Order: sequence, then structure tokens, then C-alpha cells
Amino acid sequence: MAAPQEGEELIFVPLGGAGEIGMNLNLYGYGTEARRQFIMVDLGVMFGDDETPGIEVIMPDPSFIEERRHQLLAIVLTHAHEDHIGAVAHLWPRLRVPVYATPFTAALVRGKLAEQGLLDEVPLKIVPLGGELQLGPFSLEFIDITHSIPEPNCIAIRTPLGTVLHTGDWKIDPQPMIGRRTDVDALRRLGEEGVLAAICDSTNVFVPGRSGSEAEVASRLEAVIAMCKGRVAVTAFASNVARLQSIVRAGAKLGRHVALVGRSMHKITSAAIETGYLKDLPAFIDEVSAANLPPARVLYVCTGSQGEPRAALARIAAGEHSNVTLGPGDAVIFSSRVIPGNEKAIHTLQNDLSERGVEVISAEDHDVHVSGHPARDELADMYSWLRPRVAVPVHGERRHLAEHVRLAKSLQIPEALLAPNGSIVRLAPGAATIIDEAPHGRLMLDGTIVTERNDITLKQRRALSFAGHIAVTVVLDERGRVLLDPVVIAAGVPEDAVESAQDAAADAVDRLSGRRMEDDRLVIEEVRRAVRRAVQDTWGKRSVVQVEVARAG
Amino acid sequence: MAAPQEGEELIFVPLGGAGEIGMNLNLYGYGTEARRQFIMVDLGVMFGDDETPGIEVIMPDPSFIEERRHQLLAIVLTHAHEDHIGAVAHLWPRLRVPVYATPFTAALVRGKLAEQGLLDEVPLKIVPLGGELQLGPFSLEFIDITHSIPEPNCIAIRTPLGTVLHTGDWKIDPQPMIGRRTDVDALRRLGEEGVLAAICDSTNVFVPGRSGSEAEVASRLEAVIAMCKGRVAVTAFASNVARLQSIVRAGAKLGRHVALVGRSMHKITSAAIETGYLKDLPAFIDEVSAANLPPARVLYVCTGSQGEPRAALARIAAGEHSNVTLGPGDAVIFSSRVIPGNEKAIHTLQNDLSERGVEVISAEDHDVHVSGHPARDELADMYSWLRPRVAVPVHGERRHLAEHVRLAKSLQIPEALLAPNGSIVRLAPGAATIIDEAPHGRLMLDGTIVTERNDITLKQRRALSFAGHIAVTVVLDERGRVLLDPVVIAAGVPEDAVESAQDAAADAVDRLSGRRMEDDRLVIEEVRRAVRRAVQDTWGKRSVVQVEVARAG
Repeated sequence: MAAPQEGEELIFVPLGGAGEIGMNLNLYGYGTEARRQFIMVDLGVMFGDDETPGIEVIMPDPSFIEERRHQLLAIVLTHAHEDHIGAVAHLWPRLRVPVYATPFTAALVRGKLAEQGLLDEVPLKIVPLGGELQLGPFSLEFIDITHSIPEPNCIAIRTPLGTVLHTGDWKIDPQPMIGRRTDVDALRRLGEEGVLAAICDSTNVFVPGRSGSEAEVASRLEAVIAMCKGRVAVTAFASNVARLQSIVRAGAKLGRHVALVGRSMHKITSAAIETGYLKDLPAFIDEVSAANLPPARVLYVCTGSQGEPRAALARIAAGEHSNVTLGPGDAVIFSSRVIPGNEKAIHTLQNDLSERGVEVISAEDHDVHVSGHPARDELADMYSWLRPRVAVPVHGERRHLAEHVRLAKSLQIPEALLAPNGSIVRLAPGAATIIDEAPHGRLMLDGTIVTERNDITLKQRRALSFAGHIAVTVVLDERGRVLLDPVVIAAGVPEDAVESAQDAAADAVDRLSGRRMEDDRLVIEEVRRAVRRAVQDTWGKRSVVQVEVARAG
Repeated sequence: MAAPQEGEELIFVPLGGAGEIGMNLNLYGYGTEARRQFIMVDLGVMFGDDETPGIEVIMPDPSFIEERRHQLLAIVLTHAHEDHIGAVAHLWPRLRVPVYATPFTAALVRGKLAEQGLLDEVPLKIVPLGGELQLGPFSLEFIDITHSIPEPNCIAIRTPLGTVLHTGDWKIDPQPMIGRRTDVDALRRLGEEGVLAAICDSTNVFVPGRSGSEAEVASRLEAVIAMCKGRVAVTAFASNVARLQSIVRAGAKLGRHVALVGRSMHKITSAAIETGYLKDLPAFIDEVSAANLPPARVLYVCTGSQGEPRAALARIAAGEHSNVTLGPGDAVIFSSRVIPGNEKAIHTLQNDLSERGVEVISAEDHDVHVSGHPARDELADMYSWLRPRVAVPVHGERRHLAEHVRLAKSLQIPEALLAPNGSIVRLAPGAATIIDEAPHGRLMLDGTIVTERNDITLKQRRALSFAGHIAVTVVLDERGRVLLDPVVIAAGVPEDAVESAQDAAADAVDRLSGRRMEDDRLVIEEVRRAVRRAVQDTWGKRSVVQVEVARAG
């Protein structure tokens, strides 16, 4: 490793994931301010919710690095979860640099690039497990760790000013069931070598103890399935290939054939098989064959554990799935956590299943799930191995980062820094400090259009959902006289309120028509005000009211 | 008690609360089918969510009993929570019968009736604690129990065909801190007398053990507040008067003056003081005085524990509260549970507080809350005292009712019946059976208008929130010729899509204008289709498109 030069700095800039859960985007920069080079670690999405109606996917705003695109060397991906890779296919055209990932992650990214027609454009480079990579001043080493998906990696980033360990998402699973175990030796060795900074997962910083192992889940799932007499459907995150393998093995042991149900289940399984996982398992059967087997011989693995309305399980619960029917005597096992915000959707789904007579078994009453993120004792282990000078928590909401800073301090880490999205953190030389703020924010994928977070159309849609829309067209002739009654088109507004809007618009135009209506703005303002007031009086709400004046001739 | 006559039946009809959490409405009927008399127990609301944009309050549809209004004797209220009393002021005009409640509940109902201008119309009658009441064939006895609000009551309903115990919402709190303890003797005595049916709270049927006591919370809260050095704000449900009292006492002990912050905090406190609670407490101070005290002398009690955006705590977190400011060194204690569906709002609030440097302390990491509903051991106690012939679970989602039925069976209750909303259950004579279905559903308070659940305007608003609205007006002259370009007014639609809608509408009208446009429907359909297709092509989404044809002259 070369010695650092005068004026060189190592900086860290989170643009997503630090202060919110989801859509991770981390930048590391090295060099003098004038000649700085960057690598990006992860480029994920989060999903829209009721605050963002009609928005499927939310991405970090990459404009800070987009403006410095010629300084960006590569995008490096830690693992294949959506919140780490989901924005690659959408934002790569703005960045146009090579993308590095281990084989399983690369297989899933490849699928996404193909969907966007980018497969031939993006240089997608495969890094072997435990591999190394030189990118400008950054020497990268991929270190095996465990999580809830195959091939999670910590990335050690060595620079002339010191080594950073970017943990990615992780846990310490002593028996991950698939893939390699955590390379504790490598982490210890790194600690002995000296770690400048640990940039670490905060998701479960409020959870005491340890996250537990996939091996425990495997045996509990087998025990629970063994007690079921009818059809069994297990719903789990499709990306948890170890869990899928455990379910298939339990099925084999209990004489049940396994059918995968749901698109992403097939997609992930293909990627897993393609990259050498899920070997030595009995073959899956298809949904149609499964339907013809005796109930006690069937085991479905379904998407839809979060209550997603279009996923397999929701369609099964609604009795609308073409090939899968569940009823009295059958059971659904939720081998998954409840992602905050999805509680109602999941409970609705469970109620629907219950209404069909299906028994619902969940992590609420049976231990059929473990988290993929480190609880406090695991965080303590990691810090004891690395002994970094600085802890910079990422991958958490504000309250998680704050708690993680407290935890790191209690573990005697000399510096612990709360650096939310947009912080430009100088990690070295000197004490870690936030030296500036980078533009940051959210981009929304609205249909096929990428928009800003505060896009006016999204705000309008929220207002529409509350009180509807009233569009009024006033038609005048060439001399500014009223040609016909104002045309009122309303949506989401009760009939009574629409009628009073019509009356109010007509009255307002009548009042105005004494004068020659030369100024459109005057007409618009007058009609708008009258309609809003009438709707408010009738309905007690303020609709979005828009008025246009059209002139004939 | 008179002996039952030939053909008389005792029926139970839940119209709300059985199969969902919230908006409870229970009917008990007695008599022959031709001459049946009813009482209603509770008449509550639930609150709208992202599935019901713009809807503040959702109520059970009372049409089944509205049609039999002359057979309804009274509305009897168990306690003052919104999900038990919130619909009285909205639906009473459809029912027009006396309303019975204990003093504290009556005080809160009175406030609601006053807001609706119904105070002089509604016969609101006060039942003393432990009081009795004869309503036609029903002999009612109010039995003290504990919950998370003053004056919760079980209601024993004696009829010639047997006694029903309607539990209302309850727990067994050995030290409720306010009001009376559970009258276990009365419940045991009832069991000895013989209970036909227990109609029982299912909220926490998945929770093992016991709910715990307000007394434990009081001492834990005091310990947590004692550790705080700056200003402390505790947020709790305003209706939990015992909790409020514990907070005030802790403040007094620790030298802190208490200010109430938030409208419902004042409302409930007034009702409590008016009905004899909260005596022997130091006086509250107002927000302005509190702001002038040293931080270590201040204790706020705030509304807003659920992240409600307009409540006191959200305004404090946003730095927008006129009198209350919190910052570094201060702490907010969430002495409340997370109501499912509010997770994201609460976490956002906690993140905002954390961002101001305020320490957030919650039931997640400190035991500063207990539930007001019975966990499994308490349910077992209740069944052991009552030993009813039949268990009919209410106050729960479908999955709760199903689990409660399983629990009751495991406790050797001879009959346990899952009777969702709308079930007409014959409790006696004979085995409890669902004999018919009553119309049931939800009414929505949309602004000031009460609408049906499947109201079209609400559906439209959901569609608008997803993909916006495009209103197109086509103006023709008296001969059916185009008078001007179609006027397009759009809301919630990106500019590009609006432009393509305009072009598509103009093109469609051009194509049509060769023919004489005599049929409005043809024009509407043609323009609508063209606009929808254009928007879909540009934006990938299907807006709500409405077209009107107006004819001049």
C-alpha cells in the first residue's frame, strides 16, 4: 500500500440508508479534493407506501455522484437484496461504470438489467467469494459473512489512509445451512492489522441477545409441518434460499412434494440453482401436479408473506389462485417477519385465510423465523473482532443510528459518529468529522417516469385521495360572453357536493357575465373560490378545484 | 325472573367488532320472532386508514336494528373508549332510544352529543357503578372490572332463558390505581348462579401470561423519569386516567410540575375531575408557565403517542408547537402501545425527535406500558369464574376469534362459537347456533356525509391517488361540429402524460369531426379510449379519464 500524499483524504458519504431503512447507497472517496476518486457500495430501492400513492419504487437521489461521474470508478454490491441492488438497473444510465458482484448477486442483477434492456451495455463483473479487487486507490477484499440470502459480503476497503470495513447486512449464523460461514478469522486478522472505521448495519440494534440460526428454524419448521394433516403452504422471503432448502428437506422427510408458487420464488430459485446452490434436493413439482396429490403429500412454498395484494398467497386467500386452493384442514405457515408498515395487510391476509378455515401459524406463536440482522451481542462480537477507531452506523432509521452510536461508545470504540444521509464524513486524516453536506434525497419511479420526492403530481394525488377533484371548464365566445353553462367534471366527490359545485360555478359565471370577461385569471379565481366554498359547505372538505377558460372562435 | 314462554328465544347479533378490531356494536334480542325486543351494547367507531383515504371515522352499519327501531329498548355503554361510544352521536338520530352509561362514560358522551347539537334530544341516563337496570325482559347488572380507562363494566344480562355476561373490554389489574378493582366475587357468584353465555374480549388472545398492572407501570415510569435531567414529556393515551395520575404523582415526587398538552388530554381530564377522579393531586400548570421553568422541573403529558400528524407530540417533534420546545438533554417517554398500522407514523415521529437530539424512551426497551386487555391466563381466570355453557368471542379480528374459540375449547367450555359480524346467534333454547345472517357492514363518515363502505367516490379516490385524474371537455356547436380544441384538466398526472392526453384528445376529436357528432356516448367513448391509451403509453399508468360533451346554443 502506497503512503498517503499531502492533502489526501478518505471520505465516506451515505446517500441512502443512513437515517432510513432501505435504498442503501454508500460512497467512499479517496484523494485530494481536486483529484478524488470514488467507489459506490450498493445501490438499492425501497418500496412506496400510503405516503406515496402510486409509487412502486423509491431510490436514493444520486446527483452528488452523478455530477462527479468521471471520478466514480465502480459500483460494488454486497448482496442481492432489493434495498442493495434494486436501483442499479434504473440509475446505471446516469453513472455508466462497471458493476462488481459475487456470482449469485450478479445473476439477479443480470435479470434486472435484461428487463430494462441494459444487458449489453452494463459491464457486470463477477468477483469470486472471498475475492480481491483493486479499484484505483482502493484495495477491496470480500469477506464471507452470513445473512438471510446467499453470498452476503463484508467488504474490507484498504486505502493509504487506513482500512474501512463496510459490513453490508449481516448476522453471525453458526449454521447458515447454505453457503459459507462467517469468516471470523479474516475479521480478527483485519482487527489485528488495524481498522480505521467500521460502517455497520444498525437494523436490530434495539434487539438484545443474538439473532439465532437458520438451523434452528429448519428443525422447528419440520416439527410444525409434521403436526399438519392437510395441505401446507409455507410463505417466506423468496431470497432466503437457505429457508427454502430447509422447507424442501422437511417436505422430503415428511413425504410431501414441494411446489413453488409465485414469480419471485421461481426467479430466485433459478438464480440459486444456476450459481450452484440447492443441489441434491428432490425435484420441485408444478402447481397443477400438486393439486392432484392427496393433501398430506403437498407442501407449497409461496410468495406473499407481507400481504402483498397481488402475490400468490393473497390470491390463494381470496380463492382466486388458478392452481392452488386451501381450505379447512390446511395450514399456512408464515416463516417471515412483519416488515413495519405491513402489519395491517398481513393481518388482513391472515384473517382471510382464517375465514376459509385455514389454520394460520406464524412467528407470533411459533419460532419459525429468525432475523438476518445482528442483535446487540452480535454487534458486540463484531466490534471486538475489528476494534475499529471509528464506528459509523448505517442501515437504520435515525433512532437506530442514535442507539448504535450509544452502543458503540459503551463498547469503548474511541469514536462513534452519527452521519445521516448526505453527510460528507472525513474518516482520515484526523478525527472522523462531518465536513460538509452532499445533496441527497429520493427519486420516485412513478409509472415509467422518474420524479423528485417533492414532485407536485404526487402531492396532488395525496390531496385527491383525501377530497377528490373538480374540474370546471368555462366556455366563452370571441367577445367574452358566456356560451354555455360551465362544465363540471368531478371524481371522488359525493353527488351532493358535485351538484352544489355545478350551481356555484353557474352562479359565479352569471355574476361575472355582466362584465366582459377579458381576464381569464379573474374568471378562474372567482369560479374557483365559489366552487370551493360550495363544496366545503355541503361536504365539509376542500376538494382540489381547477378551472379553465376556453374561448371559441 | 319470569319463566320463558313458548317460542321465546334469546339471540345475540354482533354488527361490529366480531371479526375486526374496533367499532363495536352488539345486540341482544329476547322474545318470539314476532315480538322480539332488543338492547344494544356499545356503538363505537374505528378510524380510517390508507385503505380509506379522506375518511376520518368508520361506523358499523346499523340498518338491521334501524329497521326494527321500535323493538330497540336502549343503548347501553360499557366504557368510554371511542370504539365503544364513538358512533353514538352520529347514529343516534337513526335509533332515538335512551342511552345508559356510568358517570365518567356519560360525561364523555355528553361532550360528543354537544358537538353534534344533540344534547337536548338524547335521553342520556346515568347508571351508578355496580348499578342495576330493567329493560323489558332484560335485567342488567353492571359489574366492576378493570381496563385502561375509568369505569369499565362487565354487563350481566339476565333473561328468562338464562344469563349472558358481556365482558366489554377488560383485564384483571390487581392495582388499577384509579377506580374500583374487579368485582371477582360478583363474577364468581354469577358463575354459581349459572351463566348461559360469555361474550368476551379477544384482543390479546395470542398473548401468553397476564397483562400486568398499572401499579407496575407507575413505579417504572417514576424510575425512568428520575434518570432524566432535562425536560420530560410522557405521551400516553389520554383516556388512561390512571396512567395520567401515575405520571403526575411521579412528577410531584421528583419536583416536576405537570402541564397537559393536547386537546383530548384536557377533555378527558375535565371529565375525570368532573366525575370525582384525579383528586388530591397537585394542580396542573399551563404550557406557557412550563416553558419558563428550569428543564428539570418540567413534566409534560402529551397526546400523539400514535404519531398522529396533528397531535401535540408531532408538532413538538416538528418544532412547530407554539409553547413546547424539546431539544438535546430532553426526553420523550412513549407510555403506550403501538396500534397496528401506526408503526411507520410512530417511527417517523421518534426519528424526528431523535434528530432534535431528544432521547426517545419507549415500551420497546423499557416496561413503561401495560395493555388493557386480558392475556391468556386472565381469560382462563374469567372462564373459571363464570363457567359458561357457551363462549362467543368478540372484539377481535377473525384470527383472534378463531384462536379464542380454540382456547375456550381447551378450557372445557362446552360450546364455543365463532360468530362474525352479522351472525344471528340463538343462544337459547338449545345449543348455541347461528340461525341467520343480519345485514351488516360499514358506514363511512366522509367529511360531513355518511356513506356506504363501497361508496363509489371512495373507490375513485383510491384510483386517483394511484394515477390521477384527467377531465376532458369537448365543446360542439348546435350542429354537432367541433367548436374548439378539447379542454383537458388534469390533476396528479405528470406534465408529459398531460401533453400526450391533450394531443390524443385533439386527434380523436379531429378523426370524429368528419362525421356529425350526434351521439355523445360515441364521442365520449372514443376520446376516453384515445386518452387512456396515450397516457398509458407515456406514463405506464391508467389515469381516471372522464369526458363530457357540451353543446353550445
